[in-house]
Amino acid sequence: MKDEDCYQNNSVLLDRIGMLEKEVSSLKEEIESSKQMDRVSIVIFSGEWDKLFAAFTIANGALALGMDVHLFFTFWGATALKDGKNKKKGSSNKMMDLFMPRSADDLPLSKMNLGGLGKSSMKKLLKEKKIDDLPELIESARDLGAIFHCCDTTMDLFGYTCDDIIKGDETNWCGVASFLSLSLRSKITLFI
Amino acid sequence: MKDEDCYQNNSVLLDRIGMLEKEVSSLKEEIESSKQMDRVSIVIFSGEWDKLFAAFTIANGALALGMDVHLFFTFWGATALKDGKNKKKGSSNKMMDLFMPRSADDLPLSKMNLGGLGKSSMKKLLKEKKIDDLPELIESARDLGAIFHCCDTTMDLFGYTCDDIIKGDETNWCGVASFLSLSLRSKITLFI
Amino acid sequence: MKDEDCYQNNSVLLDRIGMLEKEVSSLKEEIESSKQMDRVSIVIFSGEWDKLFAAFTIANGALALGMDVHLFFTFWGATALKDGKNKKKGSSNKMMDLFMPRSADDLPLSKMNLGGLGKSSMKKLLKEKKIDDLPELIESARDLGAIFHCCDTTMDLFGYTCDDIIKGDETNWCGVASFLSLSLRSKITLFI
Repeated sequence: MKDEDCYQNNSVLLDRIGMLEKEVSSLKEEIESSKQMDRVSIVIFSGEWDKLFAAFTIANGALALGMDVHLFFTFWGATALKDGKNKKKGSSNKMMDLFMPRSADDLPLSKMNLGGLGKSSMKKLLKEKKIDDLPELIESARDLGAIFHCCDTTMDLFGYTCDDIIKGDETNWCGVASFLSLSLRSKITLFI
Repeated sequence: MKDEDCYQNNSVLLDRIGMLEKEVSSLKEEIESSKQMDRVSIVIFSGEWDKLFAAFTIANGALALGMDVHLFFTFWGATALKDGKNKKKGSSNKMMDLFMPRSADDLPLSKMNLGGLGKSSMKKLLKEKKIDDLPELIESARDLGAIFHCCDTTMDLFGYTCDDIIKGDETNWCGVASFLSLSLRSKITLFI
Repeated sequence: MKDEDCYQNNSVLLDRIGMLEKEVSSLKEEIESSKQMDRVSIVIFSGEWDKLFAAFTIANGALALGMDVHLFFTFWGATALKDGKNKKKGSSNKMMDLFMPRSADDLPLSKMNLGGLGKSSMKKLLKEKKIDDLPELIESARDLGAIFHCCDTTMDLFGYTCDDIIKGDETNWCGVASFLSLSLRSKITLFI
């Protein structure tokens, strides 16, 4: 092999290596930008005890696995965050208030409610079986780091304020678009 | 260093570079083939006003973020696309028709409906708060580019035809498998 | 070019190639570890005929596309797996049993049930249109390889045992955290 060959070879190799470096760096960027986290995002739309029970059981299971949990409370779901002891009411929600539950513990079952009979048996069963009831599940999710987001359109619609909500000051007030940005980066997104 | 060493070195380098090029190209293919888009796919199964309101609020939020939106209307959800002014009916759905809403505006609330009282207060509230009602949300989603897919099994089951549906000719008629293929490439898939 | 140059060049090239090899191998690992499968995971929470019909239509569509299907039956959804012919009952669920459906075929519609009228017309329609009814959809999903997971907390709560469930011995008994681990690796996760 002649010196010139050696030089020429090296110059070709340099080109191929330079090209590879560019491609690897753009692959890295692509992976980084489209990466989804070990995160569960849940749109909590429903206002029934059993659906909330399911949502918070999933949230607590995910937290136990070390996953991020983001909960977006919207429409009937926002009632799960209501502080039953707070009597202050906005003016726009008086008619709604007649029909709405006053707190998570006051939510009806979606089935077999029978004037509360189904639900009281359900709560009795939970106690017997030593399974956490909804208020404990909500508290445990908060303690383990779930982020609570409250839909600002719902709050406006139902006339709720920060004061009507338990730990309203630890709650993130946002719209559906902000929540969707979080969901895009979540491996699991559910609508409950 | 001798000429032979230089040559030998280059040959080893060439092998390693060749190997790297193959691996990078197969990584690229793998990333490309499993890539999920900034897309929301929603199976709209429910036929209640409030659930449709949630589905279309999410759709419009996603469209505002520049995301793709694909909506698959199936079962009760297909009634949201019905053209209330169209009186032509297939023969197979006569009995069903007695109980089915005639258009999106005619859908009941899932809760506190009370013979329409809950819903009329809801619509009044929306107007007061200047929040778009369902028919406007549906139109805005179409205008902003959401793709509407109608489940062909549902259409067959309920005896609906293209004529019974608003803008039936701009709607994609397909089965659940086609919709799942779109969902596989979506970062978010919801069942509402 | 001098021998020393050739040597120096090679040593620099070697460093860059070594670096690239490390980066490509860590990209591979990252892609592998965060890879989501062509898999649909469905949390089946609801106990209505129409929702189960939707869940199993999606499951069968996904199986037809060659996708993995994992179904997690929890709360009311667990009744879809009940063996209607089995009369043996645990003691804790006697009160619940009065209100609960006895098998998938016994599940109510979520809407227009009207004492079963809506559902009997639905079943008549399915037969007319030659569309598979729920029990056939469930069997077909099993035959095509869907994995059935039963929520152990629900079984405990409602007092169901392996004997109360159709093919209970072919069913995976697990908690919500195990199911979430499967969902993390699924491109589609739904809550129905």
